[in-house]
Amino acid sequence: MKIVAPSQAMQQWSRQVAQQHVLVPTMGALHEGHAALIRRAREIADPSATVVVSIFVNPIQFGVNEDLSCYPRTLAADVALCEKENVDFLFYPTVEEMYAADASVRISETQLSQRLCGASRPGHFSGMATVVAKLFNIVAPNIAIFGEKDWQQLAIIRRFVHDLNFPIEIIGHPTVREKDGLAMSSRNAYLTPEKRAVAPKIYQALQAVAAARATGEKNIAILLMAARMALEDIPGAMIDYIEIMNEETLAPLSEISENSKPRLFVAVKLGETRLIDNIALHAS
Amino acid sequence: MKIVAPSQAMQQWSRQVAQQHVLVPTMGALHEGHAALIRRAREIADPSATVVVSIFVNPIQFGVNEDLSCYPRTLAADVALCEKENVDFLFYPTVEEMYAADASVRISETQLSQRLCGASRPGHFSGMATVVAKLFNIVAPNIAIFGEKDWQQLAIIRRFVHDLNFPIEIIGHPTVREKDGLAMSSRNAYLTPEKRAVAPKIYQALQAVAAARATGEKNIAILLMAARMALEDIPGAMIDYIEIMNEETLAPLSEISENSKPRLFVAVKLGETRLIDNIALHAS
Repeated sequence: MKIVAPSQAMQQWSRQVAQQHVLVPTMGALHEGHAALIRRAREIADPSATVVVSIFVNPIQFGVNEDLSCYPRTLAADVALCEKENVDFLFYPTVEEMYAADASVRISETQLSQRLCGASRPGHFSGMATVVAKLFNIVAPNIAIFGEKDWQQLAIIRRFVHDLNFPIEIIGHPTVREKDGLAMSSRNAYLTPEKRAVAPKIYQALQAVAAARATGEKNIAILLMAARMALEDIPGAMIDYIEIMNEETLAPLSEISENSKPRLFVAVKLGETRLIDNIALHAS
Repeated sequence: MKIVAPSQAMQQWSRQVAQQHVLVPTMGALHEGHAALIRRAREIADPSATVVVSIFVNPIQFGVNEDLSCYPRTLAADVALCEKENVDFLFYPTVEEMYAADASVRISETQLSQRLCGASRPGHFSGMATVVAKLFNIVAPNIAIFGEKDWQQLAIIRRFVHDLNFPIEIIGHPTVREKDGLAMSSRNAYLTPEKRAVAPKIYQALQAVAAARATGEKNIAILLMAARMALEDIPGAMIDYIEIMNEETLAPLSEISENSKPRLFVAVKLGETRLIDNIALHAS
């Protein structure tokens, strides 16, 4: 009998997957940001690895007044994009198959998920973590890739993968942007031409704050005020939140010091469309 | 590119584990009941399968006033029992390794875990499910075996394995009993000689109710009353609960019909020791 103490050794032994595979979970309505995640998957994996894309619009991560019913569904175009990017497997389960009528189990996270989008969207991150755990168990990837636009989501996934010992490496991919700087999002399709025209000002506001930080500004209140003034200048914008947090713990910062890893997070409504973005506040 | 719709097909492809393995999770203080689970593991698995026993006294499933600090720890005897039963791997992680200081994720179940022991022990089943999910991810068994004495635990594990798509077959093993009928439990070691002498009366009470049911009694109130009277007759016994539930859904039953799958569940304190037991109420 072998006696094994460290979890890592046990896990290494337990998961002798013949072929490496990489998962890119999506809700469909694929755009160039997703394509970048897929290319990244191919890049980082072994040459023989299999790239799996999942498409599932997860009902339990939408609130009752949110956009579940009108969330864009573009399966034919999604399949074409996946074919073009040499995806090996496209997994698109049905809602009925994913959620039994008596389903009663959730993944709950009690620290990182309380603030930012968690405050505006109660239950969202629990629903997200639950479906991602399901996808991890179904696909059993070695690696999974998520976009950094949804930074809080990425932080929560890293946390539950660690806390629940999923044997999966989580990779965050930098936000892919339109030429004018707007963070790519399936929800950008909701924007009217007028709102689309002003939407890039969100990222311009983030860049202005990052520039102030890079030139030495350390005062959190001043940085937040700069963000607020710039965002309030966008015609028709309603600010949901503007926060500067430690980018790993998502704890709010009262001052910037050596190890505080500050990142600015914003959520803004343009008409009915809620957009989020974030930027690192590095000293130069 | 292959397009996969059913989760089962995806999962089958994803988990090509070279060698089958079977997990018997325990909190140590191993007794003949655990030995029976280990032998069952060997019996049902492929001849080449690996049998893994885990020993971990899981702090997060104990309440603040419960017996975590005095829970019996008998590692040398446990190792000997595992050697004798030809266990291949004994996994015994440390608490520090299993729970990071910033751990913030739990598995929560909102239906089956509310009643019976869940009512008396808030947080217990969430703590249990969380550690079992961790063990599943670390050991990655094909099969895991649990005793039916902890019937509610078993039902909750079946539910979260299903709801979160863990690719693991869960097997319940019938309660192993002392010659006098007392359900084997590591906690029996707490009993004073006087309490140990009367403890078999718990199972005798269950048997009497099952016999009444087998001879045609369908009235839930009468069956519950019979259980209560028998248990109240045990010197020094304090009843925590007596319930008749559907054994799959753990929904309380108001009457016994064709498909109600009735099972009697009891929890009784003898001195400081809380004992649980259960029995199927089949018609003969």
